[in-house]
Amino acid sequence: MVAVCLPGTGGMLPTENRWLSCCWIEYQGKALLIDCGEGTQIALRKSGCKLSHLDLLLFTHFHADHIAGLPGLLLTLGNSGKRTPLTIAGPMGLKKVVDALSVIAPIVPYPLVINELEEKDKNFEHNGLQFSFLPLKHGIPCFGYSIILKRKPIFNPDKAAALKIPKSSYKTLHEGKTICLEDRRIIRPEMVLDGERQPIKICYFTDTIKLDAMREFAWGADLLISEGMHAEEEQQGLMAQRGHMLFSDSATLAKEAGVKKLWLTHYSPALTNPEQFIDKAQHIFFETAAGFDGIRENF
Amino acid sequence: MVAVCLPGTGGMLPTENRWLSCCWIEYQGKALLIDCGEGTQIALRKSGCKLSHLDLLLFTHFHADHIAGLPGLLLTLGNSGKRTPLTIAGPMGLKKVVDALSVIAPIVPYPLVINELEEKDKNFEHNGLQFSFLPLKHGIPCFGYSIILKRKPIFNPDKAAALKIPKSSYKTLHEGKTICLEDRRIIRPEMVLDGERQPIKICYFTDTIKLDAMREFAWGADLLISEGMHAEEEQQGLMAQRGHMLFSDSATLAKEAGVKKLWLTHYSPALTNPEQFIDKAQHIFFETAAGFDGIRENF
Repeated sequence: MVAVCLPGTGGMLPTENRWLSCCWIEYQGKALLIDCGEGTQIALRKSGCKLSHLDLLLFTHFHADHIAGLPGLLLTLGNSGKRTPLTIAGPMGLKKVVDALSVIAPIVPYPLVINELEEKDKNFEHNGLQFSFLPLKHGIPCFGYSIILKRKPIFNPDKAAALKIPKSSYKTLHEGKTICLEDRRIIRPEMVLDGERQPIKICYFTDTIKLDAMREFAWGADLLISEGMHAEEEQQGLMAQRGHMLFSDSATLAKEAGVKKLWLTHYSPALTNPEQFIDKAQHIFFETAAGFDGIRENF
Repeated sequence: MVAVCLPGTGGMLPTENRWLSCCWIEYQGKALLIDCGEGTQIALRKSGCKLSHLDLLLFTHFHADHIAGLPGLLLTLGNSGKRTPLTIAGPMGLKKVVDALSVIAPIVPYPLVINELEEKDKNFEHNGLQFSFLPLKHGIPCFGYSIILKRKPIFNPDKAAALKIPKSSYKTLHEGKTICLEDRRIIRPEMVLDGERQPIKICYFTDTIKLDAMREFAWGADLLISEGMHAEEEQQGLMAQRGHMLFSDSATLAKEAGVKKLWLTHYSPALTNPEQFIDKAQHIFFETAAGFDGIRENF
């Protein structure tokens, strides 16, 4: 199971009523955070995200509304007792940006591992999750991310019982390992497993115009989290110029990519009530929700 | 008249219920801000401080809880239409810190004037206000500030009328300039003014232990804003070690320096209700108020 939460859903600047866009994903007691704008550490606490679980921080890009909260978060993690490594990944240039911002957080009591993602390597793995990234189109280099959790096949206890396999060996077989029983019988995992399950796929896009490559990248996702900077179609020209998407862009993408569900995020501060315009997305892709600070679901 | 507001009163980290310590002082339509931690731009808006008035930013020191909000504030000022210069002043090393943090705010549409305050020059002037700074004792260089507004003497219209001075000359005389009337009489300001008025003095100390020099520096202030990290005396040892003050330290200072009023600020996140402990300061210095986010008064 993967828990997904959006502690913030705003773009451009933090406001009294909406924290800046970020995404918290928790899996087996470890958590990753995508983006960390000014105030994100408060947003995380308000949404009940346990900072002590954080071990991976991904950045889409280095505009202040996505990264200005980094020094404060690094210090708060240290003050909260973190001593295990924190990996920070993002586009090339990440090290320079982290080093610069660390001028006000020069010492933290845990190792920082900086992973600059080179465009030729489109995938990486962390804590059993598979990550892919896609270069988007914004004013500066910006990545979309997909996170894939491969799931074990379903274990069939009836098959195991019929083979008289001791229960103490169920876990080993479920993990895909072959075992040898005391009576010298060799039991292979496929003898007690009921085929493959689809992996869980979460996809995240903000700060980009809609690109053809996003369709394949997001293909079949259980959840697509995607930008809805504005709802009104008359903003299309401005959004294209500034590298942002409308509700309709993300809904069209969700439909074309065959995803199961869409959450809109990264709203303009001027868009005070996104829910009011949700029909502009739902008439294209019905399974759209207007993301809000604190929205959370398990997958 | 000087308007003083504390949009935030917290130390260490921003929380759901308290913004980080800062001080907004407005005088004749121009404003200065002391410190800018993470979220200060939101705190300013919540307290009704007009960002467009800001033309001076003072930093006490470069710990993240006092400066991490700088890049976001710089960008928001630009997006709000600021085109006039912003002066940023603080301890030596300011330029390096501002340059480093500007990695995520590289371009703003107004001039930045960086003023590194050398310890040998203890005073400067900005927009008709006189500033002094005092090196305090913290883990890194840290300044206290005093802001002095010299006030014009009271203009006496009865004296002016007796001398048959045209009303159009009142303002010139009130500004301290000598005039020559059409009948060739020379009128000096002191002929129509009723003596000097005390200047207004505001003093600000956070992130320090109590030092003897603070007494003279704050002498006679109309308002002393000073740190009350904790209320309980048993924290004394820890506070001394970490470079912070208790309620009783600031109250004793207020009494010794003969100030008119004390506002406590820079509370520990653990101190959720400072008002509850206000007697620990008031029994030393009665005119103490527990500062809170949004406290405001005109002087």
